[in-house]
Amino acid sequence: MDILHRVGIKSSSDEVYKALTAREALAAWWTHDTQGESKIGGALKFRFSADGKEIGGFDMKVIELQPARRVLWQVVDGPEEWIGTKISWELRQEGEYSIVLFKHQDWRDPGEFMHHCSTKWAVFLMSLKSLVETGQGAPSPGDVRIGDWH
Amino acid sequence: MDILHRVGIKSSSDEVYKALTAREALAAWWTHDTQGESKIGGALKFRFSADGKEIGGFDMKVIELQPARRVLWQVVDGPEEWIGTKISWELRQEGEYSIVLFKHQDWRDPGEFMHHCSTKWAVFLMSLKSLVETGQGAPSPGDVRIGDWH
Repeated sequence: MDILHRVGIKSSSDEVYKALTAREALAAWWTHDTQGESKIGGALKFRFSADGKEIGGFDMKVIELQPARRVLWQVVDGPEEWIGTKISWELRQEGEYSIVLFKHQDWRDPGEFMHHCSTKWAVFLMSLKSLVETGQGAPSPGDVRIGDWH
Repeated sequence: MDILHRVGIKSSSDEVYKALTAREALAAWWTHDTQGESKIGGALKFRFSADGKEIGGFDMKVIELQPARRVLWQVVDGPEEWIGTKISWELRQEGEYSIVLFKHQDWRDPGEFMHHCSTKWAVFLMSLKSLVETGQGAPSPGDVRIGDWH
């Protein structure tokens, strides 16, 4: 089972690709605490905090990098539900928009945590869109809260 | 295939249930142009516009109504991809939050339109949350734009 999303970002797919691969940009839309390097076989480490405390995170192995076209990560550490799942980003230019097709693939259990992550991904995609279009994202720990779970 | 979301709304599930069943409330978080009545076997008609023009909408048959617990709609008219799909809202109280589990069930094609609708549902769920918590939603036509498609 997959989480699917689509956003259109008023920008070039080159710029969106940079925002998915440069550490400083990932830190500016997903989470301030982003470590590692985006290169094939490398790992990116994303950590999240709330109320001043670290509350967990994800390690992503970078599987595929096609500039302005596609990024693919595999989750190698994090919540049990995420381990082994893949996150793919497909980009294509349509006029003034870069269209982002997002897939968080291969969930084993469509439980409440998957519901939560689906909504939270949408919120972070809006943060990515805002970063690229305006220079200002809403990364953790200043991210938009969607409920009792962070 | 299903679109799944979860939000926590600081409110009672009675209030959230009202926001999913009262026409005035539906008009205040989803779309201003909401017609019909929320009763078993009845139909709710949601219409959307952009740039002053009607761009389509959905007719939902109301299948199930359990106050403060559950609402179930079936799409009887609208885009071909939506017809026959079901939209279920499950509510439960957890302390100060009403937890909303949202499912848009039985999509036949996980194509680009499903990706778009998944993101757009998240945006409207945040509008629902905002309406219940603050009295102010962001319904169509003043909804948050997520790209080139409305």
